[in-house]
Amino acid sequence: MTHLIAKSARLRSTPYTKRIEEYGVQSYTVYNHMLLPASFKGIEEDSRHLKNNVQLWDVSGERQVQIHGPDAAKLTQLITCRDLSEAKDYLCYYAPIIDDKGKIINDPLIMKVGEKTWWLSIADTDVLLYAKGIAIGMNLDVEITEPNVNILAVQGPKSFELMSRVFKDIDKLKFFNFKRFDFQNHKFLIARSGWSKQGGFEIYVDHDEIGLNLYDTLMSKGEDLDVRPGCPNLIERIEGGLLSFGNDMNMNDTPLECGLGSFVSFNPKIDYLGKAELEKQQQKRYL
Amino acid sequence: MTHLIAKSARLRSTPYTKRIEEYGVQSYTVYNHMLLPASFKGIEEDSRHLKNNVQLWDVSGERQVQIHGPDAAKLTQLITCRDLSEAKDYLCYYAPIIDDKGKIINDPLIMKVGEKTWWLSIADTDVLLYAKGIAIGMNLDVEITEPNVNILAVQGPKSFELMSRVFKDIDKLKFFNFKRFDFQNHKFLIARSGWSKQGGFEIYVDHDEIGLNLYDTLMSKGEDLDVRPGCPNLIERIEGGLLSFGNDMNMNDTPLECGLGSFVSFNPKIDYLGKAELEKQQQKRYL
Repeated sequence: MTHLIAKSARLRSTPYTKRIEEYGVQSYTVYNHMLLPASFKGIEEDSRHLKNNVQLWDVSGERQVQIHGPDAAKLTQLITCRDLSEAKDYLCYYAPIIDDKGKIINDPLIMKVGEKTWWLSIADTDVLLYAKGIAIGMNLDVEITEPNVNILAVQGPKSFELMSRVFKDIDKLKFFNFKRFDFQNHKFLIARSGWSKQGGFEIYVDHDEIGLNLYDTLMSKGEDLDVRPGCPNLIERIEGGLLSFGNDMNMNDTPLECGLGSFVSFNPKIDYLGKAELEKQQQKRYL
Repeated sequence: MTHLIAKSARLRSTPYTKRIEEYGVQSYTVYNHMLLPASFKGIEEDSRHLKNNVQLWDVSGERQVQIHGPDAAKLTQLITCRDLSEAKDYLCYYAPIIDDKGKIINDPLIMKVGEKTWWLSIADTDVLLYAKGIAIGMNLDVEITEPNVNILAVQGPKSFELMSRVFKDIDKLKFFNFKRFDFQNHKFLIARSGWSKQGGFEIYVDHDEIGLNLYDTLMSKGEDLDVRPGCPNLIERIEGGLLSFGNDMNMNDTPLECGLGSFVSFNPKIDYLGKAELEKQQQKRYL
């Protein structure tokens, strides 16, 4: 049964919404209070195209929670079970956010983007409010904001060729690494990541106007590669084994219960909420 | 431009979704990660009908955040600028939830539903995560959960007649009061409230099966009143001056900036986050 989506300011548009509607987006979902495209020509055709070509995705809904300040590293570590004590400022960390019972609240990519600045590229729950609550409650010296960052993902086997036409040396960027690249005299943070198994990049666009120029440039430079607007694809992501928070796991689950044990650290040198609960659960598994 | 909504488990259905789809819901919005109907026969016709008759609304998306335990009253007061120190266990309190800067995070109805139990009937942000963060950070003795409560609202001028046919003595319930009423040997908490200016009730359904019986009973007993499924209506709520969090105000605003000053208490006997900021703002207004 098909139903329309009722638009309103509360379901925020993105800088690219006008573009993707001109290109004929068919359906939306809602992600972090924002419109996220869900299909263009039907998910089967979209999936086929994604596996063979290159797509430009408006995934602005993957909002950034920015934690900045003297206690930023402490707070970021407190809310995730992944060990970030040796975090590099060029690597993306897939990191479950958990509560004091070890239950998953979200599963972002975390990046240390500055000496005292971390970005959590989140799934669909208000991590900002959780982080803010902890920070207030513990009187931590941090500022927690949602910067105006709207991710453009370039995904598919031909994404490497397309991106090389626009960004110099992008071919040297390794998987789950990030770095700043120049476009029209603006430095965009770009990660080799994305929510498909076809390979590609996520461009953290922090300038709306240059971002739209970038959108148009990628579309025009990729014509011969059959570049199209696209979006995270239900078929492809299930075939690829990508878990979706809210679909495949939720706040009733712990990372250990979801097969995410490799992202749970029991390093005695780090401290995070829910650690004791996860340790208990881990011990029971091996009794 | 119209677009479809892409359904998935992440956009949760409600116990009534099957019913309202049989009755021909036209569009959905998403509210607290849940499907919220947005129109049935078009918002103009829906609005006309609402003002003249009675409608049954699936507003399950107005989730409850339950705060329970020895520190429940303390935590609930900490996160709202409304004075709850004398809160009665039969009154609904419209109460802005704010952060330490006085910015609005949500605007729920708050009810003290038990000696150590409070319900926050929330707008569209994850207040549960904020409350959880504060509780963990301050080491408060509370349990914070989202109970399985799915509100049925009965709205419109004929809602009083319809409800009287099902609930004994419901006509004695005053505006913004709540009380428990019997249906099929189950006590449902019912408030005289709702997100329209046409009058009506909100039934806090905490039993799915009896809730569906109630849905069907209200539909059949209201046939001569032209009862129909309905939903919060954009035209009616704007005409009625009802603010919508996320549309008319958001986390950049304080309650004082939104004309919600009457819900801000400066009672020296209470303590809440952001009070000092709101005091400063209030003083500037009168300089």
